[in-house]
Amino acid sequence: MGDTPVADVLPELNIRLISGVRYFVVENLRSARRFMKACDKTINIDSLHFTELNEHTPETDIAAMLRPMHEGHDIGVISEAGCPAVADPGAGLVAVAQRYGYEIVPLVGPSSIIMSLMASGFNGQSFAFCGYLPIDDSKRTPVLKEMERRIRRERQTQIFIETPYRNHRLIEDLCRRLPSDLLLCIASDISGPRQSIITKSLGEWKKTEYNYDKIPTIFLLYS
Amino acid sequence: MGDTPVADVLPELNIRLISGVRYFVVENLRSARRFMKACDKTINIDSLHFTELNEHTPETDIAAMLRPMHEGHDIGVISEAGCPAVADPGAGLVAVAQRYGYEIVPLVGPSSIIMSLMASGFNGQSFAFCGYLPIDDSKRTPVLKEMERRIRRERQTQIFIETPYRNHRLIEDLCRRLPSDLLLCIASDISGPRQSIITKSLGEWKKTEYNYDKIPTIFLLYS
Repeated sequence: MGDTPVADVLPELNIRLISGVRYFVVENLRSARRFMKACDKTINIDSLHFTELNEHTPETDIAAMLRPMHEGHDIGVISEAGCPAVADPGAGLVAVAQRYGYEIVPLVGPSSIIMSLMASGFNGQSFAFCGYLPIDDSKRTPVLKEMERRIRRERQTQIFIETPYRNHRLIEDLCRRLPSDLLLCIASDISGPRQSIITKSLGEWKKTEYNYDKIPTIFLLYS
Repeated sequence: MGDTPVADVLPELNIRLISGVRYFVVENLRSARRFMKACDKTINIDSLHFTELNEHTPETDIAAMLRPMHEGHDIGVISEAGCPAVADPGAGLVAVAQRYGYEIVPLVGPSSIIMSLMASGFNGQSFAFCGYLPIDDSKRTPVLKEMERRIRRERQTQIFIETPYRNHRLIEDLCRRLPSDLLLCIASDISGPRQSIITKSLGEWKKTEYNYDKIPTIFLLYS
């Protein structure tokens, strides 16, 4: 899901499959309804059942969300941007479904992690996605040191994200604390209208004017 | 690319964009031509320019492949299965294009890494793709030990692949060498007709009959 037109980022098959599903676990109720309407204008939204699953959901509520499956129905999982269960809610629900032995069918969609990696020019044979870096200096420093070690010794691309309003602070931080020969790819607004994916050395980024303020952005480091 | 119908795995946008491109760098010439025909039956294949880029290509040949871009043309990169430059050829070419400051536009497609992760139930907030494990016992043992450490201490899902005819040997090896409480997800024939994505503990896999012989498969470990 996202603001991009459905046909730009999702294969037809997804729309066909989704049309057959009546039970959904979704990150956000309102935008999930909007998304279903965009997929199929003739859809009767009131015949669909939605349950919300997001960072506010207690873990103890998750198992009960599988009830429609126990009764023989399929469940669709829809997350806001990116792929469900990958840097987005859903993994807990899938884990329970796996324990019951249910078939899980992942659908193709835009993964900003993979898309930014494809366009970075960095090693795609070995990479790690690390989520958010610690905010606290004393915790962030050893994490950056370990990332640098894994880049140099294991040739492993390091990928991470930041809360969009902190993007500039993060870029300055990387430029200040890491050697200027390291390469930083800044992948911003992936599959959006202002998409930009640029790789430069940290030394070059220091001298570059940029504006990624409040834009969803992925960061990749390599050498 | 792959044997699955185009509309099942690629958004319409890709087909529209591809139709405007005349220069291609492809992993395999024959299947790339077949793929282009499948995307657009009216296409005049003879008007398109293909250059092969795969494991046999000397690295020194890569920079010259960008010549059409220097002349103002777009270049499309097509790989066999999965996403170009991610566990597939292309990263070297993209790296050179980034140095020239060219715009790189990644297209949405099926990434078996992300799809298997989505369906595994494992941590999608932190994961590493490690490519192939070393074949040699003396090298494989420390790699497995380090993976187990990263699972337990960093809660990082570990993802890797194997040459399909060695799948069974790898599964036996994991069952023998790692603690039986670790979870192994075997994700096989992703977006193919025999797709199967099953998570069990290594202890359970030991008692399970399976047949993944010669089927492209991704392995994920977590606890």
